[in-house]
Amino acid sequence: MPARIHMTMIGAHLKVGKPVVTCELIMTNESFQVYPLIDRKKRGGRLTDKEIKWFIQSFTENKIPDYQMSAMLMAMFIKGMDVAETASLTDAMLESGEQLKFPGKNVIDKHSTGGIGDKASFILAPIASAAGVKVPMIAGRGLGHTGGTVDKIEAVKGFKTSLDLDDFSKMLNKEGLVLIGQTPDIAPADRLIYALRDVTATIDSIPLITASIMSKKLAEGANGIVFDIKMGTGAFMRSTKDARALGKSLIATSKRFKKKAVALITDMNQPLGNEVGHSNEIIESIETLKGNGPKDLTDLSIALAAHMIHIAGVEKTFDKAHKKALEMVSSGKALNEFRKLLRNQGGDERVVDDYSLLPMAKITTEIVAPKSGYIKMFQNEKIGLLLIELGGGRKSKSDIIDHGVGFTFKKKIGDKVKKGEVIFTIQHHPHQKEIVETIRTRFLKEVLTMSASKVKTPKLIIEKLS
Amino acid sequence: MPARIHMTMIGAHLKVGKPVVTCELIMTNESFQVYPLIDRKKRGGRLTDKEIKWFIQSFTENKIPDYQMSAMLMAMFIKGMDVAETASLTDAMLESGEQLKFPGKNVIDKHSTGGIGDKASFILAPIASAAGVKVPMIAGRGLGHTGGTVDKIEAVKGFKTSLDLDDFSKMLNKEGLVLIGQTPDIAPADRLIYALRDVTATIDSIPLITASIMSKKLAEGANGIVFDIKMGTGAFMRSTKDARALGKSLIATSKRFKKKAVALITDMNQPLGNEVGHSNEIIESIETLKGNGPKDLTDLSIALAAHMIHIAGVEKTFDKAHKKALEMVSSGKALNEFRKLLRNQGGDERVVDDYSLLPMAKITTEIVAPKSGYIKMFQNEKIGLLLIELGGGRKSKSDIIDHGVGFTFKKKIGDKVKKGEVIFTIQHHPHQKEIVETIRTRFLKEVLTMSASKVKTPKLIIEKLS
Repeated sequence: MPARIHMTMIGAHLKVGKPVVTCELIMTNESFQVYPLIDRKKRGGRLTDKEIKWFIQSFTENKIPDYQMSAMLMAMFIKGMDVAETASLTDAMLESGEQLKFPGKNVIDKHSTGGIGDKASFILAPIASAAGVKVPMIAGRGLGHTGGTVDKIEAVKGFKTSLDLDDFSKMLNKEGLVLIGQTPDIAPADRLIYALRDVTATIDSIPLITASIMSKKLAEGANGIVFDIKMGTGAFMRSTKDARALGKSLIATSKRFKKKAVALITDMNQPLGNEVGHSNEIIESIETLKGNGPKDLTDLSIALAAHMIHIAGVEKTFDKAHKKALEMVSSGKALNEFRKLLRNQGGDERVVDDYSLLPMAKITTEIVAPKSGYIKMFQNEKIGLLLIELGGGRKSKSDIIDHGVGFTFKKKIGDKVKKGEVIFTIQHHPHQKEIVETIRTRFLKEVLTMSASKVKTPKLIIEKLS
Repeated sequence: MPARIHMTMIGAHLKVGKPVVTCELIMTNESFQVYPLIDRKKRGGRLTDKEIKWFIQSFTENKIPDYQMSAMLMAMFIKGMDVAETASLTDAMLESGEQLKFPGKNVIDKHSTGGIGDKASFILAPIASAAGVKVPMIAGRGLGHTGGTVDKIEAVKGFKTSLDLDDFSKMLNKEGLVLIGQTPDIAPADRLIYALRDVTATIDSIPLITASIMSKKLAEGANGIVFDIKMGTGAFMRSTKDARALGKSLIATSKRFKKKAVALITDMNQPLGNEVGHSNEIIESIETLKGNGPKDLTDLSIALAAHMIHIAGVEKTFDKAHKKALEMVSSGKALNEFRKLLRNQGGDERVVDDYSLLPMAKITTEIVAPKSGYIKMFQNEKIGLLLIELGGGRKSKSDIIDHGVGFTFKKKIGDKVKKGEVIFTIQHHPHQKEIVETIRTRFLKEVLTMSASKVKTPKLIIEKLS
């Protein structure tokens, strides 16, 4: 099948003396046939940039039916895609929607692959912003067993997460920090494809995950991205090997799009911090911004913020950036940025000083150790699922989240506990006694593993990729 | 997800003293979830009999959407299925429709995987029938580059290929030979799945092909099947290795269903016989039944018929069966059976003696050798495609076939030809001069390879599997 119109590349990647002409790919009008492309991928062959873009564009325009797309996705899943193919898929999904652009090199975002108790965004974003980084956050809602940044911040009364992209851009330019939820204007192809992956068992593919994350991050207009790749029983990636593969893929794709990128592989074998649940996590975030946070959450938030400050070019070395991040907390500047964020987006900033303004279930029930010993392991994913049972997450899309329920962990992996000592408490409503008993039973049976002998505290930051 | 109702097996494969209780699987009412089954198959895991049957039944009942089925088909395609899974898929598709049963052990069918000029059915079926085998043929129409048995017999005026299954059964019991086209009552699941495979590049999978063929053959009520697995440039299987894999899979599945089976792997690097085209092939078939057929077509038809006679139990050894097959031709009994077949199904039996009663295009154009040498190779698939260009096949489902056009090969692989000597002739209509020129050009450029040195005649029957 002959090409009808060849793809136009305006000085793509070419150095014509100086300056370097920026890369701009014009969407192709070339036409291909669906069958031979699926056929080639299923045999493990490569698809070209033009072929991938045509396929995604045609699917998004409803010219390729779901059943052919799902066959292609399964072939991509099993046979894989190389860095160039992944970049083409990213680009195709990116180009399906709006793309923001900001002046300056200091626009940096962070992406976490999600986990239990992961509230680091609320801490690192104000820190980085206070240090002079512009942070354009478009965050997600709860997905599977993990909570969502957008759901959590909505525990703060009045906070608007649904700004349109114009207001988002204006807010970033003016205030340097903005946090909204996914919008249909960004990477609509990704949304359509994700919906199909979700029902055809093609979610857990490194290239497909990479393209999904990157298309959205690139559309935000960030010049650099810091990735937090979670690894462990509470993460989508269960092994360091898988996390490393995803991290490398994200970094490689970032580089192809001329974006600075750093990835940390971090432990998700237990909740990050001590709090799990929406109001609980907002309170813990504010406490951490006040300098009173638990060590793991503080360390990770500082490290991620420091990388953002570093790749933004605010500080020339990572060590200086790290020092800067610590200063932003100790000086109260980061906390002030958080206040400003709440105020800017209509949230009740008084919560920073008065936690009783956050929704909170009235009853606290303690779950105690059934025997003495050391905490060895949590089936961390199940902690997220138990929170959903309690109402602190969605079983179906239309469910309304109860921000006031949650868990507070008193013991973490490596801690010594005596029989009868509290491992965690459950924040719940009076009518939830039955479900609390279920959680107690399932926690002791399915989540907790204890050991008679000493257990090492897991390393928080396992590896850095850049 | 707990099973709701367990599958009931009535004495399946059990020997309870004597006699052996026949196998009868009752379709399961057990319920599974779609996602984990796709997920397991995509990781290369096995699916159980119950899981496969539930999946196929649910898809056939429109409870599983096309996009999930196509993801599953792609996972099955790439990760494969073992003999047990293939048998379960076969059984699931078989059970989706009507199943015929005939008394006696001498009900034998033949299945060819299709090729160019393959008219062996018209010869072997009357031979086997004359020898006392009951032959229940449900044949296909043209598919891709290959012609269809049903299309070819329809060159005979009046021949009805659309008997319902009741009339089909009655005809077989009374006459011992019947030939009809696919009916919607047999294996409807296969038809739905095939339509999806056809647009999702999941056709050429050994287990999926096996289940598709076997579900239809088993539904016909045959007690044994002789497979003709074509191999070469005009076949779906290009290599002996692939043909052998399909043959082994068909035999293994036949055995699981307690059917006798033999498979011949046969050469399809050139047309079988000399004639390609509908009336052309009917005439060549009749000539072969009269004992005047070309050697390759005669030998293959006799061999396949002999295996049918043998596994039907008519003769105790293959050699005796082979002798019987030859006798059926030399005695004229096979030709008589063919006459009866035409008569029984409303066809004009006078064609046997008067070929002018068959539609035939008026002009004969010769295609001659561009140089002297030996015929080395034909791109045989393209011969089929060129026939379609001439009108002797369908480009889309609604196309009407011109039975009167065709090719007559004067030279085959290994033959010595002089420059200007006729390689083949084209039978066409006066208005088709332009397309004939295209065929000439493309034949010489894309189909024919000549050699200056001697070329061996390809071996017709490459291998026998049983």
